[in-house]
Amino acid sequence: MRIESLNNSKVKEWSKLKEKKYRDQLGLFLVEGDHLLNRAILKDQVVEIISIDETLEIPGIPFYLVTKEIMKKLSCQVTSTKVIGVCQKNHEKEIMGLVCLLDNIQDPGNLGTIIRSAVAFNFNTIILSNDSVDLYNDKVIRASEGMIFDLNIVRRDIYKIVRELKTKGYKIYGTDVLKGMELKNMVFGDKTAIIIGNEGRGMCEELKLLCDEMIHISINCESLNASVAASIIFYEVDKNGSKKSK
Amino acid sequence: MRIESLNNSKVKEWSKLKEKKYRDQLGLFLVEGDHLLNRAILKDQVVEIISIDETLEIPGIPFYLVTKEIMKKLSCQVTSTKVIGVCQKNHEKEIMGLVCLLDNIQDPGNLGTIIRSAVAFNFNTIILSNDSVDLYNDKVIRASEGMIFDLNIVRRDIYKIVRELKTKGYKIYGTDVLKGMELKNMVFGDKTAIIIGNEGRGMCEELKLLCDEMIHISINCESLNASVAASIIFYEVDKNGSKKSK
Repeated sequence: MRIESLNNSKVKEWSKLKEKKYRDQLGLFLVEGDHLLNRAILKDQVVEIISIDETLEIPGIPFYLVTKEIMKKLSCQVTSTKVIGVCQKNHEKEIMGLVCLLDNIQDPGNLGTIIRSAVAFNFNTIILSNDSVDLYNDKVIRASEGMIFDLNIVRRDIYKIVRELKTKGYKIYGTDVLKGMELKNMVFGDKTAIIIGNEGRGMCEELKLLCDEMIHISINCESLNASVAASIIFYEVDKNGSKKSK
Repeated sequence: MRIESLNNSKVKEWSKLKEKKYRDQLGLFLVEGDHLLNRAILKDQVVEIISIDETLEIPGIPFYLVTKEIMKKLSCQVTSTKVIGVCQKNHEKEIMGLVCLLDNIQDPGNLGTIIRSAVAFNFNTIILSNDSVDLYNDKVIRASEGMIFDLNIVRRDIYKIVRELKTKGYKIYGTDVLKGMELKNMVFGDKTAIIIGNEGRGMCEELKLLCDEMIHISINCESLNASVAASIIFYEVDKNGSKKSK
């Protein structure tokens, strides 16, 4: 189908998906560009394709050929995008394997990078606290390099879920810039859950009280970037696992 | 001194510092906010302070009280900034200790994060290839959390400097997403230089040929974010060092 008017009802509807409110209402979100679209297609999450190039049509998925002006209105990027996919949100799955909990992560780039590193180092689930940034923000999706489709990502009350994980036999590790066990000396089991705190203030003090152990990374300055700290911990946890499997 | 006109010559001059061309010409750059300003003051690099709040005056540094409109014109941030420091660029120092070379890093957030992690894990020098992003870009400075003042950061022809480092006894480690020595099995000496490649295409193939060894991090997806990969390597190199000093 061909759409040429910026006032077309479809265009208005798609454009709304740039706002969290409508993404939540409709259960849909947008991905931009070949790479992200292909990952979403692999996971069967694409319901419509919007493009300025008719050769990008894919059999079995409704296709809309639009003008450059419409594409510009829908795109969140400065450089020109050729294709956008309208995707269904992820289905939440059972929480299992290695788990990372994010306590009020605010920066979309950090969340995307944490998701990318979690996939890299064999984590299965990411739990976002209710006050964390929206998973379907375009900057999160871009920074994740499309890895949001490869992980079980759920949003929960963080206090409740920590208690639930404990009853399931998980060991809960908090993170602290000042004190705790030295990361490099730690050994992690299969039922490991790591909590990463907010960029500015770290983890909530009340949440720290629920942890079985605090992890500390020795550094020569105040703190690390939150996604870097998370990634280094994932790397060590994964290294542990591969040691055991030898 | 009080300035109220947007057309004041001082305002025009400061405003130019938002562009790389003028930062290079004048050898000056801007930092925004208390935290970054204080770090720059500690290092004696602040030549002027611009603020909307007269209580922020600091003895010994020329102070300009400006209007909110002027501040808005000078600021690169969405939220309102109260104070801006005009700073002298870093002086390049001798290259020594642990070294990280960046081959065409483009994302300012990545460069800032790499600088922050380099300080955290006791690296002494960062060498930017001539085609890397500008160190004095406001996003670099912000992502570095002011750590740009705590490191020797130089810009060089990367091929020339790699050869120079070799004659100084440095061992040059490249990074590759596909092959190389497993990071976790490696031992690093004091004269270690790590090369991190461009975000999209990694290191140049010709540059790889100059390396003594390639580092590889085993992961479950295509690649890691460049600043995450760099930080994990810094962490391992630093861990090595602290093992040896025991």
